[in-house]
Parts: sequence; structure tokens; C-alpha cells
Amino acid sequence: MAEKTTIKVLIDGKIMTLSGYETEEYLQRVSFYLNSKIEELKGLPGYRRLSQETKSSLLALNIADDYFKAKEMADSLEHDIEEKDRDAYERKQELISLRVEMEKLQKEVSRLRGNRNNGR
Amino acid sequence: MAEKTTIKVLIDGKIMTLSGYETEEYLQRVSFYLNSKIEELKGLPGYRRLSQETKSSLLALNIADDYFKAKEMADSLEHDIEEKDRDAYERKQELISLRVEMEKLQKEVSRLRGNRNNGR
Repeated sequence: MAEKTTIKVLIDGKIMTLSGYETEEYLQRVSFYLNSKIEELKGLPGYRRLSQETKSSLLALNIADDYFKAKEMADSLEHDIEEKDRDAYERKQELISLRVEMEKLQKEVSRLRGNRNNGR
Repeated sequence: MAEKTTIKVLIDGKIMTLSGYETEEYLQRVSFYLNSKIEELKGLPGYRRLSQETKSSLLALNIADDYFKAKEMADSLEHDIEEKDRDAYERKQELISLRVEMEKLQKEVSRLRGNRNNGR
């Protein structure tokens, strides 16, 4: 089982202790992403006048939007993979029947060549 | 250009006005997801004693974690697709050369059959 990681990170200028079974690098990446989202929101007109509660909801909504977009992307890629797998299966069947047909032709060539030689 | 949607949703029991170029259904799905995340956190021991600020950060971190997981999944699927595309390309080349080889064999069979018939 993975060891539990506990690190201190700065989120929106405040120290937070994160702890989980993720790597330190992962927790740092998540914190970095969160801070960049907060900075993005701070750039919106009128943001500073919003209540802390609304700011928090905005942040959560914003990240949830990223999550839904990434999930939609993953779902669409999964769909592509299913299609590609179907194509690959068809192509494989095609290869198999071509090889069978080729083997028959090779035998026919050998037979005909044999006949020709016998006929000499 | 898509029309702007403005809807009122309940997030953590409070009415929020959401507005964006997404569909109403999408904004409802995002809100539903957010509320289920909040409910999940409320089930954690000691959650109610946390400051509002910590609760907000916890929520944001939690959603960001979902986002990173979905993104990792999408990245890994993209990698799979690249591999499948490479395989498909190789298989296509294999099919092409098999068809060329088969055509040669078919010609050889015709030639040999012609010779045999001529030899009669």
C-alpha cells in the first residue's frame, strides 16, 4: 500500500496541510492549478466586491467546469477507441482471409508448376 | 453563436444565478455534481467544526482532484489512440503489400494456366 503523504502548500496565500495517498508532486500540481484558477477569477471585473461565499462557489463551479470538460473529452476518446477497435478487428479478419486465399494461390502455383514440369 | 443561458440553481442550499454559453442541462449537471461533492464532504468526521475558508478549500481541492483524474484518463486514452493509430497504419501497409503479392500470384496462376492450355 502507498505511504500517506502530508505536505504544506500555499493556497490563495494561506498555508494548508494536505494529506493523502498521492505523491507530493501530485499534491503540488493540484495546488498550483488551484492557485492559477483563483488568480484567473481575481482578474474578473467586480470579483473583489463579491462575498467570500460567492467567490468560493465561483471557484468550485469553475473547477467543476474543467472537470466536466476533461470528462467529456475522456468519454469521447473512449468512444473513438471502441470504433478503432472495431476497425482493427475487421482489418484483422480481412488479413486472415487474404492470407488463406494467398496460401491457396501459392499451392495452385506450385501445382501448376509441377504439372508443367511433369508435362515436359 | 450560442445564446447565453441564465438559470438559478441551488448550491449548498443557497440560490445562485449561473450564466454562460452552456446549455441549461449542462449547468444543472454541474450544480448537481457540486452539491453531491458538498454532501460527500459533510459526511467527513470533524467537517462541521472546520472554518468556512477551510471547507471551501477542501471542496475546491476535491473537485480539482476529480479534474486531474479525468485529465489523466483523457491523456492516457490519447496515448492509447496514438498507439492504435500506429498499429492500424502498419496493418494497412501489410494489407496493401499482401494485395500486391496476391495480384502477382493471380497473374502467375493465369500465366501458368495459359501455358498449360497452350501446351495441350
